[in-house]
Amino acid sequence: MKNLARAAIIAELLGTALLLATVVGSGIMAQALADGNAAIMLLANSLATGAILVVLILALAGESGAHFNPVVSLVFYLRKDISGSQLIYYLFAQLCGAVIGVLLAHAMFDQPLVSEYSTPRTGQGQFLSELVAAFGLVAAILATLRRGVAAVAASVGLYITAAYWFTASTSFANPAVTLARALTGSFSGIRMVDVPMFILAQLLGAMLAFYLARGFRKPGSQ
Amino acid sequence: MKNLARAAIIAELLGTALLLATVVGSGIMAQALADGNAAIMLLANSLATGAILVVLILALAGESGAHFNPVVSLVFYLRKDISGSQLIYYLFAQLCGAVIGVLLAHAMFDQPLVSEYSTPRTGQGQFLSELVAAFGLVAAILATLRRGVAAVAASVGLYITAAYWFTASTSFANPAVTLARALTGSFSGIRMVDVPMFILAQLLGAMLAFYLARGFRKPGSQ
Amino acid sequence: MKNLARAAIIAELLGTALLLATVVGSGIMAQALADGNAAIMLLANSLATGAILVVLILALAGESGAHFNPVVSLVFYLRKDISGSQLIYYLFAQLCGAVIGVLLAHAMFDQPLVSEYSTPRTGQGQFLSELVAAFGLVAAILATLRRGVAAVAASVGLYITAAYWFTASTSFANPAVTLARALTGSFSGIRMVDVPMFILAQLLGAMLAFYLARGFRKPGSQ
Amino acid sequence: MKNLARAAIIAELLGTALLLATVVGSGIMAQALADGNAAIMLLANSLATGAILVVLILALAGESGAHFNPVVSLVFYLRKDISGSQLIYYLFAQLCGAVIGVLLAHAMFDQPLVSEYSTPRTGQGQFLSELVAAFGLVAAILATLRRGVAAVAASVGLYITAAYWFTASTSFANPAVTLARALTGSFSGIRMVDVPMFILAQLLGAMLAFYLARGFRKPGSQ
Repeated sequence: MKNLARAAIIAELLGTALLLATVVGSGIMAQALADGNAAIMLLANSLATGAILVVLILALAGESGAHFNPVVSLVFYLRKDISGSQLIYYLFAQLCGAVIGVLLAHAMFDQPLVSEYSTPRTGQGQFLSELVAAFGLVAAILATLRRGVAAVAASVGLYITAAYWFTASTSFANPAVTLARALTGSFSGIRMVDVPMFILAQLLGAMLAFYLARGFRKPGSQ
Repeated sequence: MKNLARAAIIAELLGTALLLATVVGSGIMAQALADGNAAIMLLANSLATGAILVVLILALAGESGAHFNPVVSLVFYLRKDISGSQLIYYLFAQLCGAVIGVLLAHAMFDQPLVSEYSTPRTGQGQFLSELVAAFGLVAAILATLRRGVAAVAASVGLYITAAYWFTASTSFANPAVTLARALTGSFSGIRMVDVPMFILAQLLGAMLAFYLARGFRKPGSQ
Repeated sequence: MKNLARAAIIAELLGTALLLATVVGSGIMAQALADGNAAIMLLANSLATGAILVVLILALAGESGAHFNPVVSLVFYLRKDISGSQLIYYLFAQLCGAVIGVLLAHAMFDQPLVSEYSTPRTGQGQFLSELVAAFGLVAAILATLRRGVAAVAASVGLYITAAYWFTASTSFANPAVTLARALTGSFSGIRMVDVPMFILAQLLGAMLAFYLARGFRKPGSQ
Repeated sequence: MKNLARAAIIAELLGTALLLATVVGSGIMAQALADGNAAIMLLANSLATGAILVVLILALAGESGAHFNPVVSLVFYLRKDISGSQLIYYLFAQLCGAVIGVLLAHAMFDQPLVSEYSTPRTGQGQFLSELVAAFGLVAAILATLRRGVAAVAASVGLYITAAYWFTASTSFANPAVTLARALTGSFSGIRMVDVPMFILAQLLGAMLAFYLARGFRKPGSQ
């Protein structure tokens, strides 16, 4: 494996780890401080997550493309921007990174490294929410790519901040994030039993965005 | 109809739908979580709406100009940037998109697809507020156009975040948005009976901005 | 008077009016919604003010330089960027605009056009705060000028958002704003009797920034 | 000493002073207004700190590189971007500036110039938090340097806003800031006895980021 590829894989692992540390850590902090007001918790959680996404994309786009998300990598594979073996490496790095990020958040807050979430996240509204969340995320990325890294970074960060609020599921929108969040019982957790439907919805949403974007840009469509 | 035009119309429909899904969805989420504190609700609602506007404009300006607003399309028609038939298509796409966005928000939150708002939004202050809101929005767009898409996107997003707070009506500033928000009984709704005066005020505000901007740029005015 | 100059004066008047409408309007809205929590009020007030400043500077810098502030105009006069007669016109436009903005905010919220503030804003801490606030504002402008309008706009907006919080006076930092805010009894008001010391402190802070910046850039200093 | 160097040292002193005035001042203001809700306090504190960092970096990067942080200066020394004597001057300026900033914040709020913090900030979670905080900060700076000052400024501001939330220590991430915050008993303070472990953790985190970044960019690594 070439050094370039190794740097990309480390970037995906590191970026996804910091993303999850932010999602879970800011959720724990918010829960500890917000006197039970869940809107203030989500405000802190959504601003912190959006902010770190901008930073991670500006910092790591040059190394790996800054996917941090299996459905994003899948779409770039379908666009032939990355190869099949690169896809496998990326997914593996994202999953490992996501789990490390959750453990890191728990360790920083002196909590058990793994815990269990109890409130159900299920039903049609949640499924539709994750489909919309992933559709919007992938569409925002594909539509701003031509404007350069800063535009993609701003779009992804602002999109996720908004989507935490406008979807009923608070926009997981990322299978690696979803799986790893099943390891925390805090504010941002999910029951393992609810994970498969979330991931299915995210895949459908991402595919929808991919085909729509291809239609917009199809040779001869203009 | 050419493919280019079709892409523009799809972009207007899609963008307006996501805008409304954000306005209404984030309002429902905020209302559910904020323990009755309306300022926290409006904070979430205004940040989410401003954020998604930046994303939608960065993403779709290249396809349709990213109007998502009948009075904006009207002003661009008066400036001869779009033709009369394009204007009709745009208005239709924006209205359809806006309605779809409200239905989508309700579906994501497992609510009846349509509901009714009960608190009046009426009186001189509300009328003046919508006039100011639309004036400021159109003026901000026209005055930042020459600085490129990123400046327009930032200006519109930040303007709306501010205008949710500084106008007594929370700045609908958009006839398609106003009509569609008559279909929700949640935080961001409006009674159908209050819609016509809102739209009239928005038209007046937009026209005022258009004529002012034309004065600033009139041939020979410098 | 040339048309160019007239456009600049209208820009100063319009920009300062919208600035004040935002400061006062968002204060009234926040006070009405925040259930007595003054931190949430200031959060809304500071975010709205910072946001509109970015928009106004991006929109109007090309017309007038987007000062909206007598001490900023004074500093640009001392730098010989504007003439003495331009300075007079600018100050007049800013004062008129500021008053119009307060009246507009009151009208939008169906309040008496003028009202009176009762809580004292006085003492050494307030004086020092306004001196620091105006120093930082003018320093931020002078130090980012060479980076172009977008950098100045972002700096001014973010600076004011921060300074609302880190100064004990909530950073008026602007004599026209200070005078006009003496016309409102709402959240963002000030007693007329406290205005002179605020303005004196702002002048001192601005002068300090001007001389410091001149030292940094003095011919032969590098 | 050349004038250029003197300007750099003044810039480091001034920037670090304004940074600390913001951290401490916004903490005092938030504590006074937030009715005991610590999440709202941290929201204000994190937004104000992130905002001022963007301003200070945009304003002063051209003078001194805008470090305002001994571990950042140390890393730039190890990269041979600054000399050993420059490093000493920078550290001295940062420490003086940080202390001045705390005194200034206290003076603006009419408080005793120095006070003492009582709640412990200690334990493994706090140590790990500061290590992660400083690692992330230095990594974000090194990874965005090639994108220019605006990208670094945005990254640092957004990173700190997020890190206030995702680390259990609220991310001091800066030895000068840590020492100076031992002089305030308000929201953002720290006991002097907890300072050494914070600084040790910050040094470790910064070194980790430095070596990681060097690995990414090693000659022949691509």
